[in-house]
Amino acid sequence: MPDIAKRFPENPILRPSDVIPSRSDLEVTCLLNPGAFRYGGKTGLLIRVAERPVQRDGIVSTPVIDPREPSGIAVVQFDLNDPDLDYKDPRVFLHKGECFLTTLSHLRLAWSDDGVNFKVDPTPSLLGYGDLETFGIEDSRVAEIDGVYYLTFTSVSPSGVGVGMASTSDWRTYKRHGMIIPPHNKDCALFTEKINGKYMCIHRPSGIDIGGNFMWLASSPDLDHWGDHHCLAKPRPNMWDSKRVGAGAAPIRTERGWLEIYHGADFNNRYCLGALLLDLDDPSKVLARSQEPLIEPLADYETSGFFGNVVFTNGHVVDGDTITMYYGASDEFVCGAHLSISEILGTLGQNV
Amino acid sequence: MPDIAKRFPENPILRPSDVIPSRSDLEVTCLLNPGAFRYGGKTGLLIRVAERPVQRDGIVSTPVIDPREPSGIAVVQFDLNDPDLDYKDPRVFLHKGECFLTTLSHLRLAWSDDGVNFKVDPTPSLLGYGDLETFGIEDSRVAEIDGVYYLTFTSVSPSGVGVGMASTSDWRTYKRHGMIIPPHNKDCALFTEKINGKYMCIHRPSGIDIGGNFMWLASSPDLDHWGDHHCLAKPRPNMWDSKRVGAGAAPIRTERGWLEIYHGADFNNRYCLGALLLDLDDPSKVLARSQEPLIEPLADYETSGFFGNVVFTNGHVVDGDTITMYYGASDEFVCGAHLSISEILGTLGQNV
Repeated sequence: MPDIAKRFPENPILRPSDVIPSRSDLEVTCLLNPGAFRYGGKTGLLIRVAERPVQRDGIVSTPVIDPREPSGIAVVQFDLNDPDLDYKDPRVFLHKGECFLTTLSHLRLAWSDDGVNFKVDPTPSLLGYGDLETFGIEDSRVAEIDGVYYLTFTSVSPSGVGVGMASTSDWRTYKRHGMIIPPHNKDCALFTEKINGKYMCIHRPSGIDIGGNFMWLASSPDLDHWGDHHCLAKPRPNMWDSKRVGAGAAPIRTERGWLEIYHGADFNNRYCLGALLLDLDDPSKVLARSQEPLIEPLADYETSGFFGNVVFTNGHVVDGDTITMYYGASDEFVCGAHLSISEILGTLGQNV
Repeated sequence: MPDIAKRFPENPILRPSDVIPSRSDLEVTCLLNPGAFRYGGKTGLLIRVAERPVQRDGIVSTPVIDPREPSGIAVVQFDLNDPDLDYKDPRVFLHKGECFLTTLSHLRLAWSDDGVNFKVDPTPSLLGYGDLETFGIEDSRVAEIDGVYYLTFTSVSPSGVGVGMASTSDWRTYKRHGMIIPPHNKDCALFTEKINGKYMCIHRPSGIDIGGNFMWLASSPDLDHWGDHHCLAKPRPNMWDSKRVGAGAAPIRTERGWLEIYHGADFNNRYCLGALLLDLDDPSKVLARSQEPLIEPLADYETSGFFGNVVFTNGHVVDGDTITMYYGASDEFVCGAHLSISEILGTLGQNV
């Protein structure tokens, strides 16, 4: 591959068929975008598992969390010939202007001794909960701060798309912190230490008419409440990140600055990963930014699948100079790759 | 008028011609949506003053704050025949997909002894500041909390539209608190006392595809950092608030609950005002909601102007049962009306 990521030869390391559905009436359609962490000598992944009913000819059906249903889930379905149906994207569709996801996502743990071979838990770890997550939870980052793991994920419901948070110390019991950043927002990565006495995060609001899919920085006294928002990075015209950008996992402290691996997409919805280098004392200062992607969809499992031409990361573990990055490929598979911090820094001039 | 607002006979109480432009090369195009408060025995209004260069035939021109310019402002202009120009709305236009406002807004104080006759300060009180306000600041709510006045306004720049905050104790010096709620957000009204140990506010994010222009509730330990976001109220199909809703000024404590006067617009962009009644101990519980508007655009100054068919409030002062509500009419004039709290409560059944 012409990019600098050293993909695992075992890729994809997890496929939908490796995961037991959460319910007998659903199938696992996709695995996406795992958070990653170390715990008890193992590498853990917190995978987004996207499910739906087995699709029948001529019908689109999708599950929605509904506590009023005895099973906890209602299945919404429409005839594909329904003139009120607008179904052009495998991920979302519209009916009479109302938006639905094609799948319902929960978060599922997987564990590995070697960081490559993972065993997926048989049941969900975190399900959508309450009226702000009836369309599920997605793409969890995991940040270990003072011995507690903080999970920041996308909470989706007809009320909007925002950032939810949960925390755990044992990966068995979870404390819910509610929605910490309001719609429209996702891709929230916490810094793993305080800077100038404040917790910090990168998040990704979206604009209406004015603004866009930009990365922003915020600070907090307690991780639950956020303020002092600043715009950090925007898409760049005619480059690989021309349409949208968003944070990956927690920024990595290096001698030269905070290294943030982020995703960028162009107007063909081709998702690549690059790096931002942020000032150690004032992360609102962008010191450098990748001209070329660190990794782009090139392998067959990255170019074709549920939603092809996507590499997307929100999880890594770091050991010295080595980043073991886990990533979603084609919105369907979990993959891994090694990156060298010094090699990434070598690609970063003083350009922004 | 068939609604229950008792409009001032003197309406409009302020017009663009009553205000001295902030610069000799600009004209005051509109006065909009004042915050309101009492200070030193007077009623104060914090008016949004929208300015632009005198428009020449065949050209649209608009000011943008630009610290690189000696004058602090750059004027952007386009030929009205430019095929890349999309100019259908008097408030905003697009050029090559980039969005501009037609005017630049600042905040200006006006003072009155009787609440009806106001004298406008000759110079701006607060101007857009920094890179998140290059398109100006708009629609400030004023909440007095423990002797300090907190101003929450809309900060607009190409980075997006979010909620900025400033505070003052003397209406001469202001402390800037930065952007407290990130894009896309506006219409932020602070509660004037803590509830269950937390400050609270109503704000108005917007959704992309999923979600919409809904009112949300949030809480804060310090007014600067916000979390625990909950969706509070959505537009109602086929009603006067079918397209968008947003908070007015600070909720008013009544025996039956927090009374919030809010704006709603329909798909014709006709803006009316109604009321929400929220539980005193848990404002996320909506106890009642106006079926019919409390005030709708009926007077000539409300139906025609810069952007007609708009009544919009974000400022009031309360004296016993009487709300003296100040409002923007047709995005051009400042008006006033009296409302009775008991009369409003009488219109509110236990309906949501």
